[in-house]
Amino acid sequence: MHVTLIDHGNYHLFQPLLYQSTAGLSPADIASPIRAILRNQRNTTVLLGKATRIDVADKAVLIDEKRVAYDQLVIATGARHAYFNHQEWEQFAPGLKKIDDATDIRRRILLAFERAENSSDRNEHQRLLSFVIVGGGPTGVEMAGAIAELARRALSTDFRNIDPRSARIVLVESGPRVLASFPEALSVFAKRALEKLGVEVRLGTRVSRCDPEGVVVAYGRIEARTIIWAAGVVASPAATWLGAVKDHAGRVVVGRDLTLDGHPEVFVIGDTALALSAGGKPLPGIAPVAKQEGAYVARVIAARVRGRPAPARFRYRHLGAMATIGRKSAVADFDKFRLSGFVAWLLWGLVHVCYLVGFRNRIAVMLDWFWAYVTFERGARLITGHET
Amino acid sequence: MHVTLIDHGNYHLFQPLLYQSTAGLSPADIASPIRAILRNQRNTTVLLGKATRIDVADKAVLIDEKRVAYDQLVIATGARHAYFNHQEWEQFAPGLKKIDDATDIRRRILLAFERAENSSDRNEHQRLLSFVIVGGGPTGVEMAGAIAELARRALSTDFRNIDPRSARIVLVESGPRVLASFPEALSVFAKRALEKLGVEVRLGTRVSRCDPEGVVVAYGRIEARTIIWAAGVVASPAATWLGAVKDHAGRVVVGRDLTLDGHPEVFVIGDTALALSAGGKPLPGIAPVAKQEGAYVARVIAARVRGRPAPARFRYRHLGAMATIGRKSAVADFDKFRLSGFVAWLLWGLVHVCYLVGFRNRIAVMLDWFWAYVTFERGARLITGHET
Repeated sequence: MHVTLIDHGNYHLFQPLLYQSTAGLSPADIASPIRAILRNQRNTTVLLGKATRIDVADKAVLIDEKRVAYDQLVIATGARHAYFNHQEWEQFAPGLKKIDDATDIRRRILLAFERAENSSDRNEHQRLLSFVIVGGGPTGVEMAGAIAELARRALSTDFRNIDPRSARIVLVESGPRVLASFPEALSVFAKRALEKLGVEVRLGTRVSRCDPEGVVVAYGRIEARTIIWAAGVVASPAATWLGAVKDHAGRVVVGRDLTLDGHPEVFVIGDTALALSAGGKPLPGIAPVAKQEGAYVARVIAARVRGRPAPARFRYRHLGAMATIGRKSAVADFDKFRLSGFVAWLLWGLVHVCYLVGFRNRIAVMLDWFWAYVTFERGARLITGHET
Repeated sequence: MHVTLIDHGNYHLFQPLLYQSTAGLSPADIASPIRAILRNQRNTTVLLGKATRIDVADKAVLIDEKRVAYDQLVIATGARHAYFNHQEWEQFAPGLKKIDDATDIRRRILLAFERAENSSDRNEHQRLLSFVIVGGGPTGVEMAGAIAELARRALSTDFRNIDPRSARIVLVESGPRVLASFPEALSVFAKRALEKLGVEVRLGTRVSRCDPEGVVVAYGRIEARTIIWAAGVVASPAATWLGAVKDHAGRVVVGRDLTLDGHPEVFVIGDTALALSAGGKPLPGIAPVAKQEGAYVARVIAARVRGRPAPARFRYRHLGAMATIGRKSAVADFDKFRLSGFVAWLLWGLVHVCYLVGFRNRIAVMLDWFWAYVTFERGARLITGHET
């Protein structure tokens, strides 16, 4: 058996900690080179390349002109942020999916403070020190908390002309509560925790426009030079490649065994697939679902190769969900119990460190967190790259 | 007394370890935010901005239209790589001065291996697996050693179609020996150590052309897709700003007290100044010179402000020089003794960790080195950013 892994980046990214890379962790601590991870798996070839088409009839993945033939195909091409058919907002309101996104958002946030320090125009001051996060899911909540702490703590005494603590951080959510996928009590807790950090939480508020100076909502404008998009995702174009049925978010509709209808050799998993729970509800686009799907597909393929009976259907086992709200606070929702506050935060840290790939990264992240916890300092605060 | 620090980046970079950031260390570990370093120095304002002109008559630094007045001015604007009047070579042969340079070079090196893995053209294979380093000073020697070890060790079993150990690494030096500023015995040692790592060292070889497929030297072409420039620097345009006398490398000629002739309130230090030793010889563009100059100027200004007599002239105290040749080997040249090999390497590591700014960075770098030493793994091996 031979395995070919095609990816357009050379690293495996631990996305749940990506938001931390906007101000705290170094990219190298939350990502590992794919080749290094699979080094000792001698039957596996890693190809750096971007899949551009899939020839289902002839069983081949196309990377531009190059054809890679397959017997069994697993598509796990993920999702990108979606702008409700307003792709032009992306330049003003970047989202967070790749390491370069995190570096870009870090640069924008830090440059906003730098420009405010340099500016003598009071209105511009206010716009530069205002940050709007669009979307109140786990990413939005985590980003809002991280920016609030950056402003109130890490940067608080670094400037002479401005007071970073006066920064305005607004979290805009169109639905009636933040963390909509969590039990209501935890949403309430998260909102209060954000407000304690000085974040304005605006529920039931839909953004109808983004521009370089802010966002437009039903009751008017929120002026801000920095906007971060955490309001929704669209699947990779796998459905188009496959000519498959997709849902409104572009996800490929797959069967109970995660294969494409009529193509038992094509599996689609993760954020790019629409799989159903045992109860018939769509499974959410979160890491535990993707990981369990990956493990299931591996078992099916291994069984097929060995000529043994394969497990007939995928069953998602919900272990729980967690989200942090800045330093020292988090919410956690498990089957049997819920947690919020400091204990939830400790558990969150423990779980996320354990899931990191590589012993070195685990140590590095723990050290960085410990350092940040004791000193309120943030590690990676460098402005790098060019403005786009 | 009030101090204003103007810099076009938001970080202080420990340049002697920058080459390690091409494959080993994370940028955040060798750089610290300037604001954080000076946080508790309440009489100091940090301005993010690029000086564009100096009005010596009216005593002001200009950042585009903005004027920053001064009583005493210290210029320490450093140097960039120089291409012997062939600035167009820069796109093919990037040099190493800033963090973004290191990320760019890292991307080029790693992508060369990736492309070779994907290519079926044998000539292109060879070009992609060939690396030319132009310049045999400490940076060139360190880069050549680092690439050799990346190819022979860290990446050695990561690919399936290519053998990274077959990579060709050529160090081209126009002079008769590498590390020309070191005693000859250490140059000989360094050359042999490089050759043991599999680096071809070409002495007395001048590059007359760089293009996307290699370099041209007296006896022909060396084909290589990756070229790294370590062959010389030119000072920042401070001499032009000041209308001052400069040498062939653009350095401002300063007096024994490091001030500009006729302007005792203008100091020029570091790589952008041409200062003379007690014996009348130009001081080299190395970190110890710059650091001692900085300390001297601080003493002079402090004395002036207090109305006390200032030390009349700067005296450079040469403490020694060091260069590494990959893992486990280095050369060190001190007044009373010389070292080469493993012990020199241990000393090199110790000295460089001590000079890093910030306790956190020291711990992080030591951990990374320890990890790399034990496992032969390299930490930061991510391809990020966009191709230019």
